[in-house]
Amino acid sequence: MNAAIITIGDEILIGQTTDTNSAYIAKTLEKIGIQTVEMCSIGDQRGHILDTLRKYQGEVSVVIMTGGLGPTRDDITKKTLCEYFGDKFVFDENVLAHVTRLVEGYFKRPITQLNKDQALVPSKAVVLHNEYGTAPGMWLEKGGTVFISLPGVPYEMKALMDREVVPRLMKAFSRPFILHKNVLTYGVGESLLAERIESWENNLPEQIRLAYLPSPGKVKLRLTARGKDQEELEDLLDAQIDALTEIISDCIVGYDEDETIEVAVGRILMAKQLTLSAAESCTGGRIASMITAHAGCSAFFKGSAVTYATDSKVDILRVDKTAIERYSVVSGEVAIAMAQGARKVFASDYAVSTTGNAGPTKGDSDVEMGTVFIAVAGPKGTICEEFQFGQPREKVLERAAAKALEMVRSEILKNVE
Amino acid sequence: MNAAIITIGDEILIGQTTDTNSAYIAKTLEKIGIQTVEMCSIGDQRGHILDTLRKYQGEVSVVIMTGGLGPTRDDITKKTLCEYFGDKFVFDENVLAHVTRLVEGYFKRPITQLNKDQALVPSKAVVLHNEYGTAPGMWLEKGGTVFISLPGVPYEMKALMDREVVPRLMKAFSRPFILHKNVLTYGVGESLLAERIESWENNLPEQIRLAYLPSPGKVKLRLTARGKDQEELEDLLDAQIDALTEIISDCIVGYDEDETIEVAVGRILMAKQLTLSAAESCTGGRIASMITAHAGCSAFFKGSAVTYATDSKVDILRVDKTAIERYSVVSGEVAIAMAQGARKVFASDYAVSTTGNAGPTKGDSDVEMGTVFIAVAGPKGTICEEFQFGQPREKVLERAAAKALEMVRSEILKNVE
Repeated sequence: MNAAIITIGDEILIGQTTDTNSAYIAKTLEKIGIQTVEMCSIGDQRGHILDTLRKYQGEVSVVIMTGGLGPTRDDITKKTLCEYFGDKFVFDENVLAHVTRLVEGYFKRPITQLNKDQALVPSKAVVLHNEYGTAPGMWLEKGGTVFISLPGVPYEMKALMDREVVPRLMKAFSRPFILHKNVLTYGVGESLLAERIESWENNLPEQIRLAYLPSPGKVKLRLTARGKDQEELEDLLDAQIDALTEIISDCIVGYDEDETIEVAVGRILMAKQLTLSAAESCTGGRIASMITAHAGCSAFFKGSAVTYATDSKVDILRVDKTAIERYSVVSGEVAIAMAQGARKVFASDYAVSTTGNAGPTKGDSDVEMGTVFIAVAGPKGTICEEFQFGQPREKVLERAAAKALEMVRSEILKNVE
Repeated sequence: MNAAIITIGDEILIGQTTDTNSAYIAKTLEKIGIQTVEMCSIGDQRGHILDTLRKYQGEVSVVIMTGGLGPTRDDITKKTLCEYFGDKFVFDENVLAHVTRLVEGYFKRPITQLNKDQALVPSKAVVLHNEYGTAPGMWLEKGGTVFISLPGVPYEMKALMDREVVPRLMKAFSRPFILHKNVLTYGVGESLLAERIESWENNLPEQIRLAYLPSPGKVKLRLTARGKDQEELEDLLDAQIDALTEIISDCIVGYDEDETIEVAVGRILMAKQLTLSAAESCTGGRIASMITAHAGCSAFFKGSAVTYATDSKVDILRVDKTAIERYSVVSGEVAIAMAQGARKVFASDYAVSTTGNAGPTKGDSDVEMGTVFIAVAGPKGTICEEFQFGQPREKVLERAAAKALEMVRSEILKNVE
């Protein structure tokens, strides 16, 4: 069981849009034991679409394509699919009813001919209901390969994958057993980590494959086992993860597949019924934004004072003006005062603060670009660390936010122990 | 002049990592008149890498590949490239010096053998200096095609593209002339927009291609002209954009290629020497985070009070507690008070606020999921609007933040006129 993913759209090839759909589709397929062997992005061009469909037919079990289903002239996927299958369009009453309901009831405007045309589908296609949009998904088969066409809008595609595509694929194919386990590490670089676990890695059983997935400040180790016996694979993986945990327990933060640092922190805070707030200068709302992207965060997150202007550090967080003058706005003293101020004003158990210079110019303060002070205030006091995250700006912001959350995590665990 | 982009890495094919590199590379190539005809992602597997290199050789002028250059065992791109070119490794002293400087001087730890091995490069390769990382880029040629290998870490890749790859490509190839112009529209859906500009679109000259690039709340129209005479193309495009502007002037917000709504707002604020702050409940720091991602924002952005907890709306923004009790925390009254409170506490000319329920559950308030109130307070008063952004959560947050900035923009322009 393998798959290819095709993204169709000129906006991808000119780099205006980043394709996030393929990653979601691949991850979803992987969970049900279908391995993606290739992803490709092509333009809204009939010939290239037909060539690509031909290339994968008979080579992979499933082709999932996204994009090119919009109502406008440059969207030609549906027409081209119809041609590839030597098919003709028929009118689907259910789709029309759904489109009418969305456009008239929800967007509150009269339905247009372009909207109505979205109800045209190839006669051989199984129509997949698109709850959140007007372009239906389609399922077609040819030469031993299933071709699935989905809209390119990410939340429409996601709902279609989860509710329509996955249940049908699970019914249609018997699949091998693939098991993933992840080990999330923070604070150690990829090559140093590799050296520390070298002998463990050398002795991994044949069925297990290891991947290093580094991103700024962290490395995710992904172990993949393939086989027929689920229980045997589970045991095999668990034993290896236990062995690994003994070697690098100091830098492991979790094992959950989708667990990001903000989710890990939220989980700990909720379990211990503690609350968090933030005072963000250089990270500019990024910490708050990471946390609040996840539903349920109101149980532990009180808020963040994004005090970009110096005056607002004084007015909102009650940072001492003379401390700012004496030590500069980018200093450990100010970071500590910000964290303590946020803890007070938000009445939270913990508060984390950032102040630094993200670059790309030196700005008001004397510190080097990339210098960031991070402080965590908690019931047992306040800690502060200075970091040098280098350049560019994007990296500084990303690393500072991740490091801040990592410090919160370790402070809570330290205080509880 | 055309190009193919290859992304190498198992983490892409299992959907753990979203490939953002290809979009950046495509956009960069497009700017210098090199058209990307295909992007593909493949695993860290020798056979698949060799097949893919073979497939593009002689078919495209340039192949740019990213990924698989890390120091660990699963990274095999360099080895496989060396094999494809029938080459052998040589030691590059400059790379070793750079790696040593980074690891010992910057990461402050002893250099390892894995680090040292990063200085091994194929003898036929032109080495491209990687300022921000330890894996060098490489430039090789075979059968009329240039093969360029870059590290997968985004900020390393970006610096290499801008500083090493683009100047070399511009020297190596004479390129046709490609011109893009963009028209950014907010607040009108793709199909309604298409109907409004139908006759204009029908009469576009042959050299011009139109693409609709929709994302929540906005549609970017991209016009691409190809030809030999730059001046002629400029005139042709400008005339078409003037004609288009007459038809849809009510929903056009700008024309700049990379202009996002937050950049557009920042530009207007700076030009008029005005300042902005925010009070974010449901958007949870997203507005602040969008603005502060761009360097130079401290000139106009004062900060944001991310008041997730109800108490913090009272304590920081001085929202009247009885108003919250009477109208509920998700109401126009509270949105208005939040915006006015932020304007005061941050001493800014304008302030924007959001309060709503992003879902996926109903939460404390009685409002439907997806309901968001957005208010903008300015020197001439405060406006407020209620929106229904539906579901899922991700869409609500994205649309609310974009809509908030759009309202700021139109308020400022209205007050100034």
